[in-house]
Amino acid sequence: MRFLSDNAAPVHPDVLAALAKADEHDLPYDGDRWSAALDERFSDLFERDCAALWIATGTAANCLALGTMVQPHGAVVCHEEAHIEMDEGGAPGFFLHGAKLILAQGEGALLTPADLDAVTQRIRDDVHQVQPHAISITQASEYGRVYTPAMLAELGDYANARGLSLHMDGARFANAVAYLACSPADAVGPCDTLAFGFIKNGGMSAEAVILFDPKRAAEVKYRRKRAGHLQCKGRYQAAQILAMLEGDLWLTNARQSNAAAAEIAAACGERLMHAVEANELFVRLNAAEREALRAQGFEFYDWGDEAARFVTAWDTKQEDASNLAKAIAGL
Amino acid sequence: MRFLSDNAAPVHPDVLAALAKADEHDLPYDGDRWSAALDERFSDLFERDCAALWIATGTAANCLALGTMVQPHGAVVCHEEAHIEMDEGGAPGFFLHGAKLILAQGEGALLTPADLDAVTQRIRDDVHQVQPHAISITQASEYGRVYTPAMLAELGDYANARGLSLHMDGARFANAVAYLACSPADAVGPCDTLAFGFIKNGGMSAEAVILFDPKRAAEVKYRRKRAGHLQCKGRYQAAQILAMLEGDLWLTNARQSNAAAAEIAAACGERLMHAVEANELFVRLNAAEREALRAQGFEFYDWGDEAARFVTAWDTKQEDASNLAKAIAGL
Amino acid sequence: MRFLSDNAAPVHPDVLAALAKADEHDLPYDGDRWSAALDERFSDLFERDCAALWIATGTAANCLALGTMVQPHGAVVCHEEAHIEMDEGGAPGFFLHGAKLILAQGEGALLTPADLDAVTQRIRDDVHQVQPHAISITQASEYGRVYTPAMLAELGDYANARGLSLHMDGARFANAVAYLACSPADAVGPCDTLAFGFIKNGGMSAEAVILFDPKRAAEVKYRRKRAGHLQCKGRYQAAQILAMLEGDLWLTNARQSNAAAAEIAAACGERLMHAVEANELFVRLNAAEREALRAQGFEFYDWGDEAARFVTAWDTKQEDASNLAKAIAGL
Amino acid sequence: MRFLSDNAAPVHPDVLAALAKADEHDLPYDGDRWSAALDERFSDLFERDCAALWIATGTAANCLALGTMVQPHGAVVCHEEAHIEMDEGGAPGFFLHGAKLILAQGEGALLTPADLDAVTQRIRDDVHQVQPHAISITQASEYGRVYTPAMLAELGDYANARGLSLHMDGARFANAVAYLACSPADAVGPCDTLAFGFIKNGGMSAEAVILFDPKRAAEVKYRRKRAGHLQCKGRYQAAQILAMLEGDLWLTNARQSNAAAAEIAAACGERLMHAVEANELFVRLNAAEREALRAQGFEFYDWGDEAARFVTAWDTKQEDASNLAKAIAGL
Repeated sequence: MRFLSDNAAPVHPDVLAALAKADEHDLPYDGDRWSAALDERFSDLFERDCAALWIATGTAANCLALGTMVQPHGAVVCHEEAHIEMDEGGAPGFFLHGAKLILAQGEGALLTPADLDAVTQRIRDDVHQVQPHAISITQASEYGRVYTPAMLAELGDYANARGLSLHMDGARFANAVAYLACSPADAVGPCDTLAFGFIKNGGMSAEAVILFDPKRAAEVKYRRKRAGHLQCKGRYQAAQILAMLEGDLWLTNARQSNAAAAEIAAACGERLMHAVEANELFVRLNAAEREALRAQGFEFYDWGDEAARFVTAWDTKQEDASNLAKAIAGL
Repeated sequence: MRFLSDNAAPVHPDVLAALAKADEHDLPYDGDRWSAALDERFSDLFERDCAALWIATGTAANCLALGTMVQPHGAVVCHEEAHIEMDEGGAPGFFLHGAKLILAQGEGALLTPADLDAVTQRIRDDVHQVQPHAISITQASEYGRVYTPAMLAELGDYANARGLSLHMDGARFANAVAYLACSPADAVGPCDTLAFGFIKNGGMSAEAVILFDPKRAAEVKYRRKRAGHLQCKGRYQAAQILAMLEGDLWLTNARQSNAAAAEIAAACGERLMHAVEANELFVRLNAAEREALRAQGFEFYDWGDEAARFVTAWDTKQEDASNLAKAIAGL
Repeated sequence: MRFLSDNAAPVHPDVLAALAKADEHDLPYDGDRWSAALDERFSDLFERDCAALWIATGTAANCLALGTMVQPHGAVVCHEEAHIEMDEGGAPGFFLHGAKLILAQGEGALLTPADLDAVTQRIRDDVHQVQPHAISITQASEYGRVYTPAMLAELGDYANARGLSLHMDGARFANAVAYLACSPADAVGPCDTLAFGFIKNGGMSAEAVILFDPKRAAEVKYRRKRAGHLQCKGRYQAAQILAMLEGDLWLTNARQSNAAAAEIAAACGERLMHAVEANELFVRLNAAEREALRAQGFEFYDWGDEAARFVTAWDTKQEDASNLAKAIAGL
Repeated sequence: MRFLSDNAAPVHPDVLAALAKADEHDLPYDGDRWSAALDERFSDLFERDCAALWIATGTAANCLALGTMVQPHGAVVCHEEAHIEMDEGGAPGFFLHGAKLILAQGEGALLTPADLDAVTQRIRDDVHQVQPHAISITQASEYGRVYTPAMLAELGDYANARGLSLHMDGARFANAVAYLACSPADAVGPCDTLAFGFIKNGGMSAEAVILFDPKRAAEVKYRRKRAGHLQCKGRYQAAQILAMLEGDLWLTNARQSNAAAAEIAAACGERLMHAVEANELFVRLNAAEREALRAQGFEFYDWGDEAARFVTAWDTKQEDASNLAKAIAGL
């Protein structure tokens, strides 16, 4: 029973089927009819004009989006445990030509205006210090927490007042929308760009970069090519995303993984380190307890010495989640 | 009847089938059993130890390979019509942190030691001029020409004598091997790295970077991640490549497209601008002739004002090739 | 008798005297009163608002100026023998984060709209090819030729019509102004930026970056610092430039070196490879002739096998120039 | 009475005199006899073979040195208040092509093996996290503290054991040597590179990059040129450094500023935030006290709300230091 990572989950059958269906001659790169459909589909979804580009990884999606916001001599303010800082192998430094990440602290890997102030107010306004050009937040956060529309509005005001752009790493955006039970537009709020994740949620190899200022798309297309990310047969990328959007499969899948996480969370009580608002659980469990769970066939990662991380996925079986919930309750 | 580009061809059914078969839980990134098999499979193929990494595009494959050879203050010598110069959107400048391409001329987009001398001997050996660190050649070349093992040996000697590394852009390496009817080892000769193309030849979204010095693999893995090219579900990348290697599908496909090209070439006679040694034909055809061919349903690109480019693919029908041959002969 | 390079000339006594005079406590970096005076002095000189920053080398001056015009995924069109291509050790690739130089040909290292068209019209307007963002010209050119105001106006129109910026490498701008006998404003024409050279003309270690859109200065200041070019004691940089501007010393010096070059040129007749409009002479001289000149004590560089380059400087003695003229005439 | 910054001090008369003396024709760039003398002079000083290059700023000196140690996908571990992190405008990100700074904490801006472990042991050894390639320390530190030879030896062992290189930012290396009363070799210990500062200590615009592996010099020379830091008339750079070395002027100057700082320190008692081992004092002074000092004519920077920073320089008058000491004692 696997709770290691939603990256480990297989591809949803509808996505695989879409690949087979896309398997005809068409123009290469993003000249095909599938790729051409993305702008409109996402504009519908977000209820405003936007441009949407497929890209193979969340890392590249974040970096291409940030590249529209941050000059090489500037900085991005993000949480000190943000994926772009901790888990992208320095990709922002590469894509942004040496721009800096300025690290803020915040409960649950969420950031508030006060959290941002704590770091930005220390920066002298002179050329000796790197100035922030953008803020990056993660929805849902690295600890499975979710920004409400009100929290996003506050961050938007903060950014606006300081001339900063606002980026959302949405590797688990679907889980956030499912949790908030609001429109995608409300879940992204005033962000200028979104890296909309599909891969953890049933996709194979396609995320979407969403630009709420569609005029920036031309530049991002040059940068995508320049980063070796313009795939020759882009129709297989676009088809995955369209399959995920079809009938709101993305939302259905996210609801399933959220539900599985919620069931387990209910059994964890005080053991929870963070409120469970998406599909990740950080649970206080000592070594013996973790050993006991593993002996019952549960797979998961340790989180330091005194806790474990469990991640549910679109394909987590109801039965497995129930079993884990019972096992934790029974410790 | 499409002769636009081998990128426009669909994915081979065996590759699609391999994706469906890979569709199980496994470790994310390149921790899965498919990815783990690549080194050995390619070491067998090339009859010596090598490291092999999947990567989504030929552009990224070339750039990651070159990154092991060229420091940011150095240069790559390549043909002035090389793909890395003409068609990769400046990706070498990005991946190599501003390293330069030094452009050489050579018949058929092939390079000889004399062609290389013509540019390298002009470079003063001082800090004011960018010094070459590597040579990049394309097998088969951008004009569909092929380096023989003897030609490769000469280039290897040239590079060795000058302390330069040698890279091969093998977007159509399969077509070259099929033409040469030699071993893959002989078709790559003394090159230090190879970007082994599968996508134009029936693959979907996976090429291989081959490092004949396997010790460089660790660095390339960091650089792949940093470029946002480490896919979350790498097993779907590796599975494509393994499917292409299975039963030498890569060679079978290349032989088919080469055969189709050869049949058309035989009908072109003096019209051919370059000997046809792979799956591309550059054919002298005036505007009226091109119009006439298009009227018969043939799709292809103009090549300047007085010629056309035809590309065959793994799925080019024998009948279509015959029809095109006849149509050209009948002009 | 040295005609090797104007870089080899000593510093003008007025510049050295200015250093001694600047030798007081003041605010570090560019917070001092000398640095603060630059904008106004150059705005007066160019008869319009501009921003001016000191910088230690012409290479850095060119690159900082180009950095305001060219995004990392774009290109600069320049002459194939431009200093930025031939003699700056790849600095544009570094400062512009991998942006490309697109090389044009043109008589006397000058560029005309037709020369530019010859390269830009070959560039397909798609993401696979790097698009030009700016044009860089050199005044006086690498072969000692000068753009007239009319020629500059044509280039300005060309650039405007295509949305390109226009940069002037003015390492020998003073010599061009002296030759044209026009205002500095007319000699820079519609250029957006100018790297105004002082070092070859009597300065020690300070050039000026001139931004005719002064709003760009803030960004350039960040980039200057980031490149390690914001000197701690900037007053010694600014003081050099102010000394060169004082009483038009820059123009006086340039007139002297131009006059020396003109005297020599008059003796060269058909030997001249390029019209002599500044302080460089490219003279057809075979090996025996060069040997004969060297035997008479003249120092200069060979220019290929059949010519020599002579450069006069602000301190070239009238007598030395006359001697060289006579020696060449007597060959 | 100025205690703002040692950058604000004037240039030592011997350095100005050396500029006047260097004012003859010689080969440009670093081909002159002054530049050629540096390797030997510094090899004598450090009692082992080293290569030495002039460079205009400490920022560039640090970055060029680090460039020999850190690949673009790697990181430098440094103190969170290190100059390279706080005051170089992101230059390391630029020169190192996006390499990362990993920030450690340590008393007095010094780092110990334990301080380093606190950050490096958190880094997972996988491609998702940026791996350290080098450690950078500052001698004397940003808080005016000094590494003893024993402390340096410990850091050297730490670095060696982990395959890391060790860089020393020696903007105030002279003050550290003066304090330690040891040889320069002992004050630099096992470091692989040193940015040897002269500008704060009486120089005008020349620092030295010292490479204790002289074989790295060739690469650094290319990188210096590429960064626009190879000055045309390098003899004026080298001459400054040679003047500072002549008769140990660098050490004499540092002893003077240290002595002035020590005299003031003696009056500060418990007010001192850090032991005074070089020429900087961080003194607890409330707003009224600072106001009182300023009313007496002392100039200095606030250090947060409850302290002030005083910096002495080579030209600080004994009388001024005594006055400040008395004024602080009298508060």
